[in-house]
Amino acid sequence: MKQVVAGIDIGGTNTVFGLTDRDGNIHATGSLKTGDYSDGEFFIQDLANAISKTLANDFKLVGIGIGCPNGNHYEGTMENAPNLNMKGIVPFVKRFEEIFSVPTVLTNDANAAAIGEMVFGGAKGLKDFIMVTLGTGVGSGFVANGQLIYGHDSFAGEIGHMTIFPDGRPCGCKRKGCLETYTSASGIAKTFIELTEKHNGKKLENITSYDVLLEAENGNPMAIETFDYTAKILGLALSNAVCITSPSHIFLFGGPIKAGHFLLDPLQKYMEEDMLFVFKNKVKLQISELMDKNAAILGSAALSWSSHSFSVSLQKS
Amino acid sequence: MKQVVAGIDIGGTNTVFGLTDRDGNIHATGSLKTGDYSDGEFFIQDLANAISKTLANDFKLVGIGIGCPNGNHYEGTMENAPNLNMKGIVPFVKRFEEIFSVPTVLTNDANAAAIGEMVFGGAKGLKDFIMVTLGTGVGSGFVANGQLIYGHDSFAGEIGHMTIFPDGRPCGCKRKGCLETYTSASGIAKTFIELTEKHNGKKLENITSYDVLLEAENGNPMAIETFDYTAKILGLALSNAVCITSPSHIFLFGGPIKAGHFLLDPLQKYMEEDMLFVFKNKVKLQISELMDKNAAILGSAALSWSSHSFSVSLQKS
Repeated sequence: MKQVVAGIDIGGTNTVFGLTDRDGNIHATGSLKTGDYSDGEFFIQDLANAISKTLANDFKLVGIGIGCPNGNHYEGTMENAPNLNMKGIVPFVKRFEEIFSVPTVLTNDANAAAIGEMVFGGAKGLKDFIMVTLGTGVGSGFVANGQLIYGHDSFAGEIGHMTIFPDGRPCGCKRKGCLETYTSASGIAKTFIELTEKHNGKKLENITSYDVLLEAENGNPMAIETFDYTAKILGLALSNAVCITSPSHIFLFGGPIKAGHFLLDPLQKYMEEDMLFVFKNKVKLQISELMDKNAAILGSAALSWSSHSFSVSLQKS
Repeated sequence: MKQVVAGIDIGGTNTVFGLTDRDGNIHATGSLKTGDYSDGEFFIQDLANAISKTLANDFKLVGIGIGCPNGNHYEGTMENAPNLNMKGIVPFVKRFEEIFSVPTVLTNDANAAAIGEMVFGGAKGLKDFIMVTLGTGVGSGFVANGQLIYGHDSFAGEIGHMTIFPDGRPCGCKRKGCLETYTSASGIAKTFIELTEKHNGKKLENITSYDVLLEAENGNPMAIETFDYTAKILGLALSNAVCITSPSHIFLFGGPIKAGHFLLDPLQKYMEEDMLFVFKNKVKLQISELMDKNAAILGSAALSWSSHSFSVSLQKS
């Protein structure tokens, strides 16, 4: 029987999972609509049933890894995730260990992405790197001394909520000027809307960061300026983060990265301009190698394989 | 024979050392004027001679720990320290190991302070904390998962060079708006000079942060506002740093901390105001327990004891 772990990614819209072997091959997948659930226990039971169905005779489940918003690694719980209908504290690890009797680990999605990069992607063998995930929000996972930094409460790695402008844009966290208000997908769209209104007097609505990319490809100078401005702010934030952990690499992940050279060329330039001299031209800025793969599942699966390698190795395949 | 390590602190003005036992008792000390030396090798020989003289028959030297500006922990060298006459790369570890035949370790001074706090001060048993040193510059040592974060090149922990205002005060590092331009001793003096000129039209000169404290104690509102402004900026920087490593404690060290409640009360207030909700009221802000002790020597001694505990334990006392 092939040993697999279930890599589960709980997203705001969909929850996806995949049975993943030690080499990162995904053998079977499934999904649920996260938004359909307001009760954690119903969600856990439906998710467990869906996983059980994919476990055909060929597979032996040896672990479960879960990436989720507001994941508390130490407690194994999802805590008050602001964008989900499931409120309160959901005890995923306890319940899945009861149901499947296999070691289960949980962390937040950006941390899972960092571990995925370390186990299956471009960060293999690296001891000090940062993963930055750009999407609805901006997340991060910091690895130092070869270990993920969880912090004393497991909530470390919130680069998206570092304050860039103390009186800047209002953020969902009720503070102002957080990095993610400028460099998340909606932050990028907002910058484009603001620039277009300022320069052309046009009021735009229902714009996504993908629309901004299409506009940039069509040569719209406001769109090109939008990515330049996004890069300027992200470059400053990355140079500040480098001051703290001095990574050899920074990996970027998420939809807005698809803007390619419109974002990445100015980002590299601004980051180096802002960098303290001791760090200049030392930090490699790279796109995640899992960008076009099933990264969310692989991250959660990697979390399980990396956490349970000892206990797993005692079992026969 | 009593086992001791030599804890050496290389400062801009003075270099001090002390023979320190495992419990943090300093049995003999000595010092040199760092500024007298432009040649690293002459400095090393004089320092070695001074240490040798203090090693009376009662002591057995089992290790050396060195804290210095721009210390490269991995290479064991001091590299291009900007405020010293000794230029270039000074190979302290290699030379001291040749001279004394004992394991020698080196790191930058703020990292040594963090390790000192962990071994001999208020951070005993803590896994995740930050040490912030305020002085001529602003340094820091970050501990996560119980280990100091050195980063890939050993230069991590430069909180003083995180950019607070992209177009702010010019910094010695040739960038602008770094934290240390506002919260170092000279940054504090500069704020007081600026505020006084703005409010009273008086041009002040040769002011130190200690003068500002005396003024605050005399009720000078500009001095009180100076510490409030310093606290506001430091509070913002600390809340940003917490986003990355989520420490349980932040320790403060250095001359400006002597401002006491003028600085610490508003600092606590601003830090909590700026804190992301998940971290609010979780992080303990404390003064270093080594503030009134021989902290620089103890930090370097702790570095040696913590790094060489295994090899040292094999030797007979």
